[in-house]
Amino acid sequence: MTKQINMDQQLVYRFGGGWADGSQEMKNLLGGKGANLAEMAGHPELQLPVPPGFTITTDTCNAYYEAGRHFPAKLEDEVMAALERIEELTGKTYGNVNTPLLLSVRSGARQSMPGMMDTVLNLGLNDETVQGLIAQTNDPRFAYDAYRRLIMMYADVVMEKAAGIPPVQGKGIRKLLDEHLESIKKARGFQLDTELTEADLRQIVIDFKAIVKREIGEPFPEDPMAQLWGGIGAVFDSWNGKRAKEYRRIEGLPDEWGTAVNVQAMVFGNMGKDCATGVAFTRNPGTGEHKFYGEFLFNAQGEDVVAGIRTPQPINEASKNSQSENLQTLEEVMPEIYAQLNNYQQQLEAHYKDMQDLEFTIEKGKLYILQTRTGKRNGTAAVRMAAEMYQEGMIDGPTALMRVNPNQLTELLLPRLDAMAERAATPIAKGLPAGPGGAMGKAVFSSEKAVELRQAGENVILVREETSPEDVDGMYHAAAVLTAKGGMTSHAALVTRGWGKCCIVGCNGLDINEAEGYFTTPDGTKVKEGDYISLNGATGKVYLGSMPVVDVDLADNEAYQTLMGLVDETKVLGVRANAESPADAANALRFGAEGVGLFRTEHMFYGKGSEKPLYLLRKMILSANRKERRAALKELFGYIKSDIKKTLAVMNGKPATIRLLDPPLHEFVPHDRQRLEELAEELAVDVSILEKRVLALHENNPMLGHRGVRLGISYPEITETQVRAILEAAAELNMEGRQALPEIMIPVTCSRNELQDQEKIVKCIYKEVCASLGVDEIPYLFGTMIETPRAALRSGPMAEIAQFFSFGTNDLTQMSFGFSRDDIGGFLPIYLEKGILVNDPFQVLDRRGVGELVRLAVERGRAQRPGLKTGICGEHGGEPQSVAFCHRIGLDYVSCSPFRVPIARLAAAQAAIQHPRQ
Amino acid sequence: MTKQINMDQQLVYRFGGGWADGSQEMKNLLGGKGANLAEMAGHPELQLPVPPGFTITTDTCNAYYEAGRHFPAKLEDEVMAALERIEELTGKTYGNVNTPLLLSVRSGARQSMPGMMDTVLNLGLNDETVQGLIAQTNDPRFAYDAYRRLIMMYADVVMEKAAGIPPVQGKGIRKLLDEHLESIKKARGFQLDTELTEADLRQIVIDFKAIVKREIGEPFPEDPMAQLWGGIGAVFDSWNGKRAKEYRRIEGLPDEWGTAVNVQAMVFGNMGKDCATGVAFTRNPGTGEHKFYGEFLFNAQGEDVVAGIRTPQPINEASKNSQSENLQTLEEVMPEIYAQLNNYQQQLEAHYKDMQDLEFTIEKGKLYILQTRTGKRNGTAAVRMAAEMYQEGMIDGPTALMRVNPNQLTELLLPRLDAMAERAATPIAKGLPAGPGGAMGKAVFSSEKAVELRQAGENVILVREETSPEDVDGMYHAAAVLTAKGGMTSHAALVTRGWGKCCIVGCNGLDINEAEGYFTTPDGTKVKEGDYISLNGATGKVYLGSMPVVDVDLADNEAYQTLMGLVDETKVLGVRANAESPADAANALRFGAEGVGLFRTEHMFYGKGSEKPLYLLRKMILSANRKERRAALKELFGYIKSDIKKTLAVMNGKPATIRLLDPPLHEFVPHDRQRLEELAEELAVDVSILEKRVLALHENNPMLGHRGVRLGISYPEITETQVRAILEAAAELNMEGRQALPEIMIPVTCSRNELQDQEKIVKCIYKEVCASLGVDEIPYLFGTMIETPRAALRSGPMAEIAQFFSFGTNDLTQMSFGFSRDDIGGFLPIYLEKGILVNDPFQVLDRRGVGELVRLAVERGRAQRPGLKTGICGEHGGEPQSVAFCHRIGLDYVSCSPFRVPIARLAAAQAAIQHPRQ
Repeated sequence: MTKQINMDQQLVYRFGGGWADGSQEMKNLLGGKGANLAEMAGHPELQLPVPPGFTITTDTCNAYYEAGRHFPAKLEDEVMAALERIEELTGKTYGNVNTPLLLSVRSGARQSMPGMMDTVLNLGLNDETVQGLIAQTNDPRFAYDAYRRLIMMYADVVMEKAAGIPPVQGKGIRKLLDEHLESIKKARGFQLDTELTEADLRQIVIDFKAIVKREIGEPFPEDPMAQLWGGIGAVFDSWNGKRAKEYRRIEGLPDEWGTAVNVQAMVFGNMGKDCATGVAFTRNPGTGEHKFYGEFLFNAQGEDVVAGIRTPQPINEASKNSQSENLQTLEEVMPEIYAQLNNYQQQLEAHYKDMQDLEFTIEKGKLYILQTRTGKRNGTAAVRMAAEMYQEGMIDGPTALMRVNPNQLTELLLPRLDAMAERAATPIAKGLPAGPGGAMGKAVFSSEKAVELRQAGENVILVREETSPEDVDGMYHAAAVLTAKGGMTSHAALVTRGWGKCCIVGCNGLDINEAEGYFTTPDGTKVKEGDYISLNGATGKVYLGSMPVVDVDLADNEAYQTLMGLVDETKVLGVRANAESPADAANALRFGAEGVGLFRTEHMFYGKGSEKPLYLLRKMILSANRKERRAALKELFGYIKSDIKKTLAVMNGKPATIRLLDPPLHEFVPHDRQRLEELAEELAVDVSILEKRVLALHENNPMLGHRGVRLGISYPEITETQVRAILEAAAELNMEGRQALPEIMIPVTCSRNELQDQEKIVKCIYKEVCASLGVDEIPYLFGTMIETPRAALRSGPMAEIAQFFSFGTNDLTQMSFGFSRDDIGGFLPIYLEKGILVNDPFQVLDRRGVGELVRLAVERGRAQRPGLKTGICGEHGGEPQSVAFCHRIGLDYVSCSPFRVPIARLAAAQAAIQHPRQ
Repeated sequence: MTKQINMDQQLVYRFGGGWADGSQEMKNLLGGKGANLAEMAGHPELQLPVPPGFTITTDTCNAYYEAGRHFPAKLEDEVMAALERIEELTGKTYGNVNTPLLLSVRSGARQSMPGMMDTVLNLGLNDETVQGLIAQTNDPRFAYDAYRRLIMMYADVVMEKAAGIPPVQGKGIRKLLDEHLESIKKARGFQLDTELTEADLRQIVIDFKAIVKREIGEPFPEDPMAQLWGGIGAVFDSWNGKRAKEYRRIEGLPDEWGTAVNVQAMVFGNMGKDCATGVAFTRNPGTGEHKFYGEFLFNAQGEDVVAGIRTPQPINEASKNSQSENLQTLEEVMPEIYAQLNNYQQQLEAHYKDMQDLEFTIEKGKLYILQTRTGKRNGTAAVRMAAEMYQEGMIDGPTALMRVNPNQLTELLLPRLDAMAERAATPIAKGLPAGPGGAMGKAVFSSEKAVELRQAGENVILVREETSPEDVDGMYHAAAVLTAKGGMTSHAALVTRGWGKCCIVGCNGLDINEAEGYFTTPDGTKVKEGDYISLNGATGKVYLGSMPVVDVDLADNEAYQTLMGLVDETKVLGVRANAESPADAANALRFGAEGVGLFRTEHMFYGKGSEKPLYLLRKMILSANRKERRAALKELFGYIKSDIKKTLAVMNGKPATIRLLDPPLHEFVPHDRQRLEELAEELAVDVSILEKRVLALHENNPMLGHRGVRLGISYPEITETQVRAILEAAAELNMEGRQALPEIMIPVTCSRNELQDQEKIVKCIYKEVCASLGVDEIPYLFGTMIETPRAALRSGPMAEIAQFFSFGTNDLTQMSFGFSRDDIGGFLPIYLEKGILVNDPFQVLDRRGVGELVRLAVERGRAQRPGLKTGICGEHGGEPQSVAFCHRIGLDYVSCSPFRVPIARLAAAQAAIQHPRQ
């Protein structure tokens, strides 16, 4: 990061009038918005009508912070020169009483952070220039409205927030001014702002200034230059505002980027009926369909569209939805302007070769393009656009693959409401389908409550009038978001789209009483906080009660199939699934898994149908001696074998790694007195004896205790039983004409000798099973988890015996950091907040520490045994960054939950594009 | 290990008659005993009168096992040839009826394993050759006694043990034969074996053979060749006997060594009054004094001396003790023989340049040397001999240093009975002072009980009639051993001497009733199992009750001072001590520590005088918010500062590493209801609130939880308070004219960012303290523990900030292996038993795994910061093998408990000799 400014460094880049000294390649320096404004204005293929302006670089922002929030000395000259150029192009002069130029000041980071930073519009207005504006526009009402908007924003953004003073009266100046506005409307008996007269607005300007002076202790600055510098400083300051920092943390964006500032001549969509403002996408961002899509409002400022206060009109037929189907389209009302806009959007998509999200304003019949950027899209749309653009020949295969964020696939795989259940139910409300998938959860009305209940393990749906950046945390924790107001481009829609989260917006009839904790729907249903509701994010329908949520079928999704076809041609890394049942295994195959990477034998003792095996396991665990233990294992054998056999049968021809019993035995014994008494009765022993045995199993640090291979070494009969079950199951399947490929995996090892001990047992049982079933051979592999740091270090000797390594990166992370995953709640949030860790290492593999152990183990293992098979089966196996790392260090495969297999596959393909293996 | 035998490989080496084809250099092949027999017989400087014989190599033993306990084919020819040579030299013939040669067969591993393997004597006797022996010796009583001894040993060692059949009648054939012998004596009214007549013995031979036939189902073999091969096989088999394996495990000897077999012509010390047998040491093995020392018995076999059945006679004045002061010496009775023996011992010590332990037999006035080996000695003796031999010019400094096993120093440092307390008490019994130091504990009468009570945390003293190899486990677990029988060369004395353990033997009047669990002393005191007794291992006095045990003063020990002088000239590695109080620190200095390597700040909250600080700490921990916490810390500050200041004052001019608070806070809160209620009252909060806070602190795996630097990051005020205390204490001491060198150490780190976070606090407090005390600087270092594997891997970046690393090898071991030290009880014993681990990695640093992390961290840390100071402060810092490793990888120092400082220093000197640093 350049933090010091050189004397010859350009701090300000200009654009407009068919020219610019910046371009889209300069995103890091000019921010996304600034770079695109320069590109649109200056690129010979485009030269679109962009209001002239200039961009102050991100380097300037960093220098500003480095200097303790002071502007670099040479900034002023460059800003003044750039301002003069705007004045030349517009024929207006900033601060001039007769031809006043009005400016906007907006943030613009390298990557869009919607609504997270501040903006000030209408800069340049004061008691004198407002007269000039009236003279220019002949619209005093408009001029005073613009003036009162400036005061409101400026007081909020510059005078209160950027100055860092506490919110006045505890609620902030903006709310205070809003309340005053509302009180005037109430006094006049008005509903809408637009009903306010020129006189009202003139008075409001006077009132606002008085309130600002009284509450903040400083007057609103009349000096236009003071306003401009105040605005620029406020944008810089908002880079480190609470909301922006929170957003960067969630999105994993670095603090060092800084923001650019875009200063631009104002154009107005709210100067009358021949004015409008809108937002459009070159393709449908919700479905990916190749149709121009957008919404606009007549006589409005851009923020009105995004804020969702009025229902916007569709720009064309393709943009109509259930709410707007009866509204007039821009195409109908202003056909020439629409044709021009449509022409521009085609130019833009062809130029950028990606879907563009653009903002436009029509000022007195003249179209301006205010912004273009690569449009956010949900997963469904991302996949469709990538596949179709590839098929259209606009982009090549690798580009198509890189266009989809692997995590976005979640959406396509997202559970949906059960169709049968949905058909049987009547929706209580209907809104706009802003986010994909289906969801159910308890209704909550505040961000705080959403976080609280979620952390208590509840599924929640956040229900809000409309959402604002303050709600981000709650939205993040909620399973879905439901808003009463807002359109498809509202805050709620944008944010949830980015996350691939179920969302319904603009659910008009919803009457939310946050204070008393309920909402009512148009049909009179009353839903209290904590009541379950279900949402269909694809149709916008809201149901009362908790509805079953089911998986989707990808077979019909042509775009998905096209994309995954490219994935399979491209990727090198194998992708397996963690699966412990025939259903899981079938699911895994459906999602494209190439094998089972982790079958946990202990799984059969959990959940439905586990009563009898669990009872036998407990009997085994609480045995007094080896003889009793052998007897219990003998009874258990059939269950274990049948469990394994069923999954091996499904995987027919594909390998399945079966991990021998791992958890400390203590996990399986009942801990409450009653269950223990029952067990004692069943086992016909005194409960006090059982209590003693349970107590003897207790450990201070069970994660580092008597588990994994340590069980197999202490109780060889446990290994024997499991190995016999695996080999018999495999041999029988082979005899039945199927192909079983079991891989026997020893957990929690730390030395070669442990493997040698267990290998002896396996070889011995192998001979016995071959003999007893009369077969010559049973194909199998013998290998180990690498999940202790020592195992990673000693992987050379271990590979003398192990034919494969599977990295258990969960445990490896626990032991490398010394973090108990169950106990990190006490400090990890602070670590993330302070930036001591960038990611939760249990979510994203720590490449520098844990990753080094993995890399080193692969290297040493392969040096010992060149054909050593390596994979990972920790939860990182389905996390794209971690998958990319696994590709880079040359693992053979990753294994993850079936549901994440497509994500891992795409991530693997992207890794292969970015890091081709030799 | 050579396990396969080549055709040209020599399996048998011969000695005797002033010649040998082996030598002392061939210990690995011939075992210690065999190599020394060859040396004594064949080396031109010696050519001592050794009974002729031959040695079968250890390779043969390994080949025997490799072949499933079958002798290599070519062994027979070599044995027969060697046997012929013995026959030539002795003029007797093995198995010949007229001039029968008798043979002994003994084990002989690379290192002596006293009593752990088997021996058979008098081989070659049968119903015919016994007549020849009678004719040769004219002593039928002797001949039949030899014959019955052979049957007894052979039945036990060859027919029962080596054959692997269960002990007959559950007690074993030897015991059965013994009982028969006793019954005959009883019937005759005899006390001693020697009272048995020729006729008795002849009958006993007949009876023995019948009993053997009946109980074992096979006859005693009359064929001398069958006897010889049976004996050889039995010795090989005894290498893997239970006792031998157990001993090797405790001593850390490899199974792969194998044992040699020594076959030798019998000479008899029990052929009459002109016969004798004895054991002697070239210097006193208990004190190290340079005087020939030994014991012997007239008319006895060698085993009689070691078994301690009769009280042996001293060989000279210098060998007299309280029991033998009135007995005649060998010097008095056989002056020529003594002179000859004395001459030989001088030759042997001069030749081997070390103290020799030799066995001799006098057969009808002719002296034979049966064995020589480097004599075992206790620590006191080892130090004295090393120092004196160095001063005598016999050995050089490095040799002197290598002569003392660092662990043996324990003895010199061993606590002794408090002299005042001892003077005030009257001994209840007195025995021979066989092992050094003082000890107190509960009297127990069986090995099993000793193990059981010790594992329950009790201090025990094992009291036995005499000890045998079956008692080894109990002896190991006992604080001391007390036996009623046996001399200074008895089993108990030999074994405890090797361990440097307190031991009193031959405590004659002791009447032990094992069955009823008590013993009585000559003065009528009755001591029941579980009663406390105290032993003075230096005087042999036994006291009733538990007597205080105190430290010793090394200042007076000239030999120790000489040796440690050599140590300090030689070693490179620094040695510090772990100390948390002025007393500890003073002790550390006394033992030669060069600084404090670990001062645990939490120590002040444990033990005596900790009530008030602990109360304040609890108040801090259970604070509701930062404000309350700061208030509690403010109160605590004075205690912390004074605690640290006292130790820094003692260390004046030497560095002291102070570790900030490490344990999870949960460790400090009261867990029982009553204490909690008291605390709630003191703190004036509801107990239910406290309970909630305590509950919130609970962790599943506290070892991997909210501890170490994680506390300092979550609660910066804790770091602030401690750092302020350290810096103020140091600054004040410096102002008082002392020199405080504190090193602030951050525990349980895993990343550079953690250190950066804490460093900021330290720097900030540093400025404040300098300002408030008006000083310009306070010398200190800032560094970190390296105790998570990730910290070791990321040591490069960490060294950007840390000025020193101190390896916390306890935690590093826990996390590398995934072994919770508190929970290894469930599996570690099995790991050691099965040989999966050679050592407990918490006792001996795992050089291959954990050690690699240490090595790598040093390398990476130094690459980043060339002057980086490195040390270890885990418990391995006082373990010789681990210290040697620390030297090799170039650490600056080790730190251990004050008591182990001399051990670490000597180990460091030895490491410097064996691995000179460049």
